Amino acid sequence: MLNELPVGQVLEVLGVVVGAMSGALAAVRKQFDVFGILVLAWAAGLGGGVLRDVLIGAVPPVGISDGRLMAAALVGGLVMYFGHPRLERARRMIVVLDAGALALFSVVGTVKGLEYGATPLAAVVVGVLTGVGGGMLRDLLTGEVPVVLHHRQLYAVPALLGALATALLWHLELAGVVGLSAVAAGVFGLRVAALRFRLNAPGPWRGSGPGGGR
Amino acid sequence: MLNELPVGQVLEVLGVVVGAMSGALAAVRKQFDVFGILVLAWAAGLGGGVLRDVLIGAVPPVGISDGRLMAAALVGGLVMYFGHPRLERARRMIVVLDAGALALFSVVGTVKGLEYGATPLAAVVVGVLTGVGGGMLRDLLTGEVPVVLHHRQLYAVPALLGALATALLWHLELAGVVGLSAVAAGVFGLRVAALRFRLNAPGPWRGSGPGGGR
Amino acid sequence: MLNELPVGQVLEVLGVVVGAMSGALAAVRKQFDVFGILVLAWAAGLGGGVLRDVLIGAVPPVGISDGRLMAAALVGGLVMYFGHPRLERARRMIVVLDAGALALFSVVGTVKGLEYGATPLAAVVVGVLTGVGGGMLRDLLTGEVPVVLHHRQLYAVPALLGALATALLWHLELAGVVGLSAVAAGVFGLRVAALRFRLNAPGPWRGSGPGGGR
Repeated sequence: MLNELPVGQVLEVLGVVVGAMSGALAAVRKQFDVFGILVLAWAAGLGGGVLRDVLIGAVPPVGISDGRLMAAALVGGLVMYFGHPRLERARRMIVVLDAGALALFSVVGTVKGLEYGATPLAAVVVGVLTGVGGGMLRDLLTGEVPVVLHHRQLYAVPALLGALATALLWHLELAGVVGLSAVAAGVFGLRVAALRFRLNAPGPWRGSGPGGGR
Repeated sequence: MLNELPVGQVLEVLGVVVGAMSGALAAVRKQFDVFGILVLAWAAGLGGGVLRDVLIGAVPPVGISDGRLMAAALVGGLVMYFGHPRLERARRMIVVLDAGALALFSVVGTVKGLEYGATPLAAVVVGVLTGVGGGMLRDLLTGEVPVVLHHRQLYAVPALLGALATALLWHLELAGVVGLSAVAAGVFGLRVAALRFRLNAPGPWRGSGPGGGR
Repeated sequence: MLNELPVGQVLEVLGVVVGAMSGALAAVRKQFDVFGILVLAWAAGLGGGVLRDVLIGAVPPVGISDGRLMAAALVGGLVMYFGHPRLERARRMIVVLDAGALALFSVVGTVKGLEYGATPLAAVVVGVLTGVGGGMLRDLLTGEVPVVLHHRQLYAVPALLGALATALLWHLELAGVVGLSAVAAGVFGLRVAALRFRLNAPGPWRGSGPGGGR
């Protein structure tokens, strides 16, 4: 399992920190108080995993019981709380780190679903949700429509492909460290490519004409 | 059980398709991308059942593990994705189909709650939630206040009466196909009557005067 | 256990009634219909406990299965439905009662988490969530950003301190009636002091200058 390796654990903690920073930043922009900022850090960093764990019956979720992960969310929140005047300018770095978190969370989330006996279909759903759920919770708690649903730029699609590939590897009994790392690298690469080359999902179908994009 | 009969299964799948169409339409109107449109289809078609299953401990919920139901949500989403320019005009038909879904979901949801050992009270709550939860989730994810909470026109009340009648039949050991079908038909009839004759629930109490309605 | 004592039970029911009144009032202000008003009463009075129970696996949650508590929420909702023209003026009384509910819920919620075998960390989280979750759900369902996240005036902090103190007493095997009552009294006192003396949590860090408050 990816998150049982030292490197996997470091990546998981880093992923939570980065997710938490995105939540804290959203809260700072809404002028939340320090408590609200830390709650948003928690929600964005660990909310996806909480949704996953509730859906597969792994309660209490690690997002409220694992001290290491909660400390990571707290650190991410505090870093952004004190650092936001400068960190807003480091946006590019944060977006790249976030792509790493997306990659790791979608792979690890799918594996956890399978380990809990979920069907491959359900495991893929919770894998994607692990990747994108924190951001959705962050947006709902700050009164925004979840950006993942309307922003066009590919974000959930890499997570979905990663979750599908993970379930396939599991089915083929190839879900070892090498295979899962390759999948995570693919998700990361696709997400970064989406950022770099502005790969967009189409909007509502227009019937005729160029179809889709804004 | 209603949803173990062929006709019940067809109705359940149809209900999910219709719910999914309502979700996809809401997403199209908000200019979501195709991923967001399909997520909203899933949320509106299967979200009520997911809430029910999480509350009664039936995890993973069928809404993320049952391939047949998820395919129904996907179909509903795709039909609306490609068909929305025409289907907006077929609104009346959709509203009637939605009444059928409401009727079926509230009856089937209550029975599932009772089968999982919930108290009659809890079963009624999850029954109503199965009927109205998908629409609530759809509204929250698109940044709207849930229409079922403020629209006045009777929607949750037929579901509530249906859930109560279902729990009563269960208690009397009369919850067979005939009895449950009659309850579902009653819910459907009451909902259609509310549409046809504009039956409204009262708004906030005004103290004196004609009391209620806008 | 606090909520096994007659006085604890009375306080718990009172807490639900008061929470429900706050939910119903929010719904009245949004011109919800009577069904929506009662749903908001339920969500605000019992939603925190429902979130707690789902997170610790105590399903179905007492918030949908305990007739006594649901009756309390219904009473609170109906009192506000019929009484809102007058009760808006009794705001001060309601706010004080709400401080009592916050105190009781955070202590009782933490104990329930510990009884279900949650780690102390997880128990503290669900304790705080029991205290503040109902209000958060109320705000989300009425289309508002949860007031607890941005209002500044101390609300969640007393609940957090109370949950921490409860977990500490439990660890020291001192979580008897006297100890827990003292903790609840402390939470209540701190919340009332926050109201009386306008104790505020800081907002986003400004880097230099007076730092924080608006």
